[in-house]
Amino acid sequence: MTRRPAREPRTRPTLATATRGRILFGGDYNPEQWPEETWQDDVRLMKDAGVNSVTVGAFSWARLEPRPGERDFGWLDRLMDLMHEHGIGVVLATPTSAPPPWMGRLHPDTLPRDADGRIEWWGGRQHFSHSSATYRRYAAAITEDLAARYGAHPALTMWHINNEYCTADYGDEAAAAFRRWLRERYGTLDALNTAWGTAFWSQGYDSWDGIIPPRRAHYLNNPAQVLDFRRFTSDMLLECFTAERDIVARHTPHLPVTTNFMPLFAGQDAWRWAEEEDVVSVDLYPDPCDPLGGRSGALVQDLTRSQARGPWMLMEQAAGPVNWRGVNHPKPRGLNRLWSLQAVARGADAVCYFQWRQSRQGAEKFHSGMVSHAGENGRTFQEVREIGADLRRIAPYTVGTRLTADVAVLHDWHAWWASEQDGRPSTRVDHAAVLHAWHGALWDAHLTADFAHPEHDLTGYRLVVVPQLYLLTDAAVDNLLGYVRRGGTLVCGFLTGVADQDDRIRPGGMDPRLRELFGIRTLHEWWPLEEGETVPCADGLTGTLWSEELEAAEDAVVETVYRGGELDGLPAVLRTGRAWYVSTLPEPDDLRRLLERIAAGAGARPPLDGLPAGVEAVRRGTLLFLLNHGRAPVTVPVPGTHRDLLTGSRVSDEVTLGRYGVAVLTP
Amino acid sequence: MTRRPAREPRTRPTLATATRGRILFGGDYNPEQWPEETWQDDVRLMKDAGVNSVTVGAFSWARLEPRPGERDFGWLDRLMDLMHEHGIGVVLATPTSAPPPWMGRLHPDTLPRDADGRIEWWGGRQHFSHSSATYRRYAAAITEDLAARYGAHPALTMWHINNEYCTADYGDEAAAAFRRWLRERYGTLDALNTAWGTAFWSQGYDSWDGIIPPRRAHYLNNPAQVLDFRRFTSDMLLECFTAERDIVARHTPHLPVTTNFMPLFAGQDAWRWAEEEDVVSVDLYPDPCDPLGGRSGALVQDLTRSQARGPWMLMEQAAGPVNWRGVNHPKPRGLNRLWSLQAVARGADAVCYFQWRQSRQGAEKFHSGMVSHAGENGRTFQEVREIGADLRRIAPYTVGTRLTADVAVLHDWHAWWASEQDGRPSTRVDHAAVLHAWHGALWDAHLTADFAHPEHDLTGYRLVVVPQLYLLTDAAVDNLLGYVRRGGTLVCGFLTGVADQDDRIRPGGMDPRLRELFGIRTLHEWWPLEEGETVPCADGLTGTLWSEELEAAEDAVVETVYRGGELDGLPAVLRTGRAWYVSTLPEPDDLRRLLERIAAGAGARPPLDGLPAGVEAVRRGTLLFLLNHGRAPVTVPVPGTHRDLLTGSRVSDEVTLGRYGVAVLTP
Amino acid sequence: MTRRPAREPRTRPTLATATRGRILFGGDYNPEQWPEETWQDDVRLMKDAGVNSVTVGAFSWARLEPRPGERDFGWLDRLMDLMHEHGIGVVLATPTSAPPPWMGRLHPDTLPRDADGRIEWWGGRQHFSHSSATYRRYAAAITEDLAARYGAHPALTMWHINNEYCTADYGDEAAAAFRRWLRERYGTLDALNTAWGTAFWSQGYDSWDGIIPPRRAHYLNNPAQVLDFRRFTSDMLLECFTAERDIVARHTPHLPVTTNFMPLFAGQDAWRWAEEEDVVSVDLYPDPCDPLGGRSGALVQDLTRSQARGPWMLMEQAAGPVNWRGVNHPKPRGLNRLWSLQAVARGADAVCYFQWRQSRQGAEKFHSGMVSHAGENGRTFQEVREIGADLRRIAPYTVGTRLTADVAVLHDWHAWWASEQDGRPSTRVDHAAVLHAWHGALWDAHLTADFAHPEHDLTGYRLVVVPQLYLLTDAAVDNLLGYVRRGGTLVCGFLTGVADQDDRIRPGGMDPRLRELFGIRTLHEWWPLEEGETVPCADGLTGTLWSEELEAAEDAVVETVYRGGELDGLPAVLRTGRAWYVSTLPEPDDLRRLLERIAAGAGARPPLDGLPAGVEAVRRGTLLFLLNHGRAPVTVPVPGTHRDLLTGSRVSDEVTLGRYGVAVLTP
Repeated sequence: MTRRPAREPRTRPTLATATRGRILFGGDYNPEQWPEETWQDDVRLMKDAGVNSVTVGAFSWARLEPRPGERDFGWLDRLMDLMHEHGIGVVLATPTSAPPPWMGRLHPDTLPRDADGRIEWWGGRQHFSHSSATYRRYAAAITEDLAARYGAHPALTMWHINNEYCTADYGDEAAAAFRRWLRERYGTLDALNTAWGTAFWSQGYDSWDGIIPPRRAHYLNNPAQVLDFRRFTSDMLLECFTAERDIVARHTPHLPVTTNFMPLFAGQDAWRWAEEEDVVSVDLYPDPCDPLGGRSGALVQDLTRSQARGPWMLMEQAAGPVNWRGVNHPKPRGLNRLWSLQAVARGADAVCYFQWRQSRQGAEKFHSGMVSHAGENGRTFQEVREIGADLRRIAPYTVGTRLTADVAVLHDWHAWWASEQDGRPSTRVDHAAVLHAWHGALWDAHLTADFAHPEHDLTGYRLVVVPQLYLLTDAAVDNLLGYVRRGGTLVCGFLTGVADQDDRIRPGGMDPRLRELFGIRTLHEWWPLEEGETVPCADGLTGTLWSEELEAAEDAVVETVYRGGELDGLPAVLRTGRAWYVSTLPEPDDLRRLLERIAAGAGARPPLDGLPAGVEAVRRGTLLFLLNHGRAPVTVPVPGTHRDLLTGSRVSDEVTLGRYGVAVLTP
Repeated sequence: MTRRPAREPRTRPTLATATRGRILFGGDYNPEQWPEETWQDDVRLMKDAGVNSVTVGAFSWARLEPRPGERDFGWLDRLMDLMHEHGIGVVLATPTSAPPPWMGRLHPDTLPRDADGRIEWWGGRQHFSHSSATYRRYAAAITEDLAARYGAHPALTMWHINNEYCTADYGDEAAAAFRRWLRERYGTLDALNTAWGTAFWSQGYDSWDGIIPPRRAHYLNNPAQVLDFRRFTSDMLLECFTAERDIVARHTPHLPVTTNFMPLFAGQDAWRWAEEEDVVSVDLYPDPCDPLGGRSGALVQDLTRSQARGPWMLMEQAAGPVNWRGVNHPKPRGLNRLWSLQAVARGADAVCYFQWRQSRQGAEKFHSGMVSHAGENGRTFQEVREIGADLRRIAPYTVGTRLTADVAVLHDWHAWWASEQDGRPSTRVDHAAVLHAWHGALWDAHLTADFAHPEHDLTGYRLVVVPQLYLLTDAAVDNLLGYVRRGGTLVCGFLTGVADQDDRIRPGGMDPRLRELFGIRTLHEWWPLEEGETVPCADGLTGTLWSEELEAAEDAVVETVYRGGELDGLPAVLRTGRAWYVSTLPEPDDLRRLLERIAAGAGARPPLDGLPAGVEAVRRGTLLFLLNHGRAPVTVPVPGTHRDLLTGSRVSDEVTLGRYGVAVLTP
Repeated sequence: MTRRPAREPRTRPTLATATRGRILFGGDYNPEQWPEETWQDDVRLMKDAGVNSVTVGAFSWARLEPRPGERDFGWLDRLMDLMHEHGIGVVLATPTSAPPPWMGRLHPDTLPRDADGRIEWWGGRQHFSHSSATYRRYAAAITEDLAARYGAHPALTMWHINNEYCTADYGDEAAAAFRRWLRERYGTLDALNTAWGTAFWSQGYDSWDGIIPPRRAHYLNNPAQVLDFRRFTSDMLLECFTAERDIVARHTPHLPVTTNFMPLFAGQDAWRWAEEEDVVSVDLYPDPCDPLGGRSGALVQDLTRSQARGPWMLMEQAAGPVNWRGVNHPKPRGLNRLWSLQAVARGADAVCYFQWRQSRQGAEKFHSGMVSHAGENGRTFQEVREIGADLRRIAPYTVGTRLTADVAVLHDWHAWWASEQDGRPSTRVDHAAVLHAWHGALWDAHLTADFAHPEHDLTGYRLVVVPQLYLLTDAAVDNLLGYVRRGGTLVCGFLTGVADQDDRIRPGGMDPRLRELFGIRTLHEWWPLEEGETVPCADGLTGTLWSEELEAAEDAVVETVYRGGELDGLPAVLRTGRAWYVSTLPEPDDLRRLLERIAAGAGARPPLDGLPAGVEAVRRGTLLFLLNHGRAPVTVPVPGTHRDLLTGSRVSDEVTLGRYGVAVLTP
């Protein structure tokens, strides 16, 4: 049942290779932006803050290879030596996410095009075509030379490949690669025509050469083509990753390799990618002015931990504001610490930032650094120092330890890709938002959750939650059925199991076996709700976003029905045995209560009783983390006596947490 | 005066050829999307539902011509035979709205470009350039072969050319065609320069070769060029239609030919097109969650009936939700029936759907079918069966009969095209919305209206309503003046008669003869209103959207004046004799009351007195249709005794209609 | 310190050459749009209205050069003679803003491209590439011939080059020109790489050939590249201007040359441009339905006067509505007169319109003219006549006189260009809006202000106001410091002095010398506010848009502090001595009060005491203009006895102004 094996079993290094008992603390460091005098000041402040790891080189290609084939490693030699001299480990990045200007000039074939045929020129970043043979050749060469030169450097602790892979390409070389990819996937044109349903709108392909990316069309692209193009894009970017990974791994088989994900980013099948990484790392930027920022951060942390199947790396966060929102808020005092410790609570063994020193020039000069424009006296750096100290205090108790969760939330990128296309029942249904709503309700209920892929082995979880998996493969349906059959409790949100792997609607609009599982005789119609529209239910629950015209099977238990309107009296929530179906998106408190009830029935409980709202409680290893996400102080009942690792003091029966306060309790 | 003759008089078949006393009932049928086993099930359900007509082949090009010049008719032979065997007529569509992928691959010249120069690639539909000689050659060939093969097939009842013609093209081949079209229209460059007013902004053309479509410009395209490009686009698409029509008509002179309009679609001069069709058909998709959906449907039905000058065909409607709105609502129980019977009430002899069986794949898999994903037990199909039965009940009394109307509403696409351009007094003025507001007020007043072109013969109408005709030709002005001179009552909304056929502003900002007709001495300024702004009038009427600074002539009757603001005391509504001018858009109830009053004065009356709001009453032939568009039951006073064809029961003095209830009364 | 000298000192003609004691009154005149019979009517009406100046030829290129190299001057000869015959001066425009269609057809290299690579085609206007050698050659030739032919014509009073220069170009010829411009600016690639901070994101250029305009990028263009591209665009357009200017100046050294600015237009460094003009002229179109329209007009007038360093020309205003807003309002009765006299009050010696006679065709046929569609009996023309008479009454007292102001507002296009880019703290900060807020507060306080460039000599101003200068050169910082050191009072808004000339963030996030000047020890963080968010301060002031986490120096005077929220107790407004820093945007009344207080302390006072709100009072030369911007009559206390030049009557102690009323008082 598990989807894991992928690469043949091998003994690869892990994050532990780099942490060696410490929590990695530091960030992206771009010394090439500064005169070498500043490096000395950097080292002084790094040591002051307890920085033990920096990521170097992510945007150094033009510096390392100023002209095609030339190499300028001198500055990096000096930097690596300097770091080593001061005991700071270096995560060395391949610079391949930002090719130098000469590459676009000499090789326009390396530039990507969007669906409208527009070139993405150099002058920004990530302007490379994943399908360009020229780009890949240059990328391999610089990676090879970097690995050869620094593979044995004592400062080197890890490899970081590229940065935030994300660039799609609709151009001609990508079209050729797409055809190769499809040929491999489908074998025959007949199979492709069947999978894509090309009988619709006269799209039958008589030649592989006729297939193109889903470029701008007059009206509505073929959805299976779009789905496959997203799969292809993820796979091609992954090919770029593995090509570079294999080079560095050949030079340094003892060092782990990572690339950084963006948080819940739609563009990569991160389950698949994680299988190819030694260390799973993520960039995480909740909005500091979002009162639910910590809650949404928890989702990304749980997802990353689940992908890593153990300790993970927070590769990037911001010490202060970012620069890409409409209005970019700084972090209020204490929030950086809260969210940093939250990451550790949820399994991180590395807490890093983009970036060490805020840039004075370039497109991100308004993105904060650990050392902000205000310098070492700025509040930002002062808080960074405190966080460094806190991490040192708790590291001995946390590094390498794991969390266990009773609850699993299922997520799959292919379902996301298939569901978010043009021409669907409601453009108001945002896959990520639905995921956040369900995970957030678990968070509100203080229930720690893992994430899992719908084909993963779910044994051991008391409760499996499916917020929305529009596309489910046969194997995934088998998996869910088997899970319930073996005693598991399953709760599914709407628009689940609608389509098969080719985005082909399942008979009856929802997989018949799932309908039977939940006790749905007929799914007559989907009734999406308008902006601002809600629908009341008999038990007081209020539905949002969606409702459904369902006919229950005879053996179904109708938990609540819609009240009023066209659906009056029809089931809103129903179940057969332990398999629940929720045909609307309950309002946050209603969803929380519903999940609390189902979880309790399944034997899944919060780490503590009586937890106040907004207080996050997570057990990692033997530790109990308590995190106050509110600005008002709060008292948490904690039976027994514990030691708070952060303060060193003993606490009995209760803990009071100040604004954004944290306690890390050990028995 | 009438603009009709167009093609030389000939005896062409009509819709009656296909209906033969029945109301056509059925829909688009795409058997190529299903295994042939499913066809048997289709036939069973079609017969169950009373389906007697299916439209086949609209998107079958790639199936029929899998490679250039090849033909695969076997499946279609079998399908045609099967339909015939079961007594189901086939409207055979030419597949030319969706060329196969090989066409774009081998002939990129067939692909259209938008105003920004972006190609519209294959992978959707309607990706053909109307000006492409290559496309036209292939389209003619497949049409020829289809007509030759199936012209004599007994299942064949009608031809359907292409589907929802709409694709513009700004590319080079279209540019050459545009020049040819202009040369034909204007003869000389001088005439073109005069018509386009190229003395403005130095746009004088010294060569036909210098003329291009109105592609992306730095600032504001020439409006007459834009207007002519819209005329050209409509004409070129019409050329595509007539080329295919002439082919099939040669093979089957006895069978009618149609193409389906989109409802009140801006892209075709549907008056002109209708002249070239044997059957006028339309696709109609009011929003089921729009409480005025039935009212706006009535407009499209009246327009289509007027274009058809007799019975017309509802080619497409949805049995449930569509998939192209932001939020796509199903039809509540009863609404499909209500709107289907409304179409018959307003003159349709064919009630069809897109599509028979909901697709499982492709871009429209969330667009409902008569057989939805829920299958034959779904509510959707169950209601379709009931509608089929209703139509059979009333067909003997309705097919071939006509409506008469006392009121004509004038509409002209050229006026629309000229008025909705950049750089005008108010972008808030939406031609279609204004048309809906005026027609809707007539509907609210229970007044049945035809539509007419401003150059049509208006004799016989008691009241002519001009919601807005920004552009009026001299002939149209003559026509209006003659109509009033001969005793007709005319009421015009603002922005009427502003421009001549070349979008040249008439002296004084409004045709002087019209100003004299209404009693306007000087039109000082237009005062468009802001979002949310209204303007009160002395008699309680509230104006929206627009107001005007008018000076009345001495002989004018000022019906009401503006109150407050800059226009205080100036005429809002004025008239001379039977010629009324309304310089604002009254709020719905105010406009209804105004039209009721004017209509009453002109001797135009509703079919019944005392009709409740939301109840539509229409007389077709000898029948009286009563349709309740509300969800609450309502009682309608109907003097005398009638038989309700739907229930077979007799009713006296009043009829009670349930939610979405319909009665079809015969004396 | 002053940035003025630019061109070597020379004796150039000024606006006085053209006015000769009169206020120029008239507008753009496009006789080629009308039959010559109409010209006679034009002359009759012009004389009736007192028109003494028309601008001819701005869009006549296709008429003057109907085919490449041909010339058709006959019509213009007749027109010039006609104007001369009737004593109407002609401002002759070069027609180079709208190349004829043949130019694009024969020379596609003359067409500009946008950042997405899209061509801007002919069919509108301004479709020329500033970098095109072909365009420049044709433009020079037609200019040469015009100057040669009409240089000695007695009707000619001034030259008007092109029209509203604004078109950027991202194409290949522009790219080559950009490289030449950069080479001249930076000399070496090293210098460019340093200035652009290309070490960020691997953008180091190894070859001049690698540099392109900031075309569409995958993510965030280099901001210094964007800044330089905007500088380059302004400079290239200026080159186009000076090339034509030098041609006409050679032929007519005695006649002044201008080109018309758009009001507060972002695309040109108007300080730099003004240095190259003999007459500074501007187009001004406040929204007639904006109650603050007159206030925002005052800003443009003050800016234009300051650029002109003396009398200036209102080249274009609208007698009624424009056609480019969403909803285009006419001017209520009296508003045209009010705003025309306001221009004179604020230094204009020319009050002109676009255009004389409203066009019947073309893209601006809904833009009003002095003679509107309603003709000579229309309200619009009747008001124009009155304005002409008013201007004749006051001209003897105003022409050539100057205003003096105690207050200077600093503005710099480079600061604007650097600050309004992607990836900044808040996209809600709109440079122009902030400028309007501050200047508007001065207007509300009845304080007359000049504008100045931050490197201009500020001596003589009692108060210097810096609404926001994100970028300040070292020289500008020197200038501000020197100004305060020499006794001046300075008040600065937030986001000032953040970056240097290369958009490099100053140490500490704000120039250290400025921080010291204001008494800011540490600028910890910027706290931009969300839409609708405000922040209260201790003294009742309410901040909007922005706030800051500041730490005051010991010697600073904290004028008020933030109350509540994260910034509770931190300085909102502080100063050291006469140097004030305002870290938020106070609400309008709060900002007015703050500036009144600071101005009073600096000895800057309104022209009169006790001025009611909405009444503008300006002293020009010996005259006192009083302008009522409200619709309600108002009485203004004016000590002593004056004569009102408009009415000829004497007024004592007070003046009553009706709706939109104006008095021009002389002692």
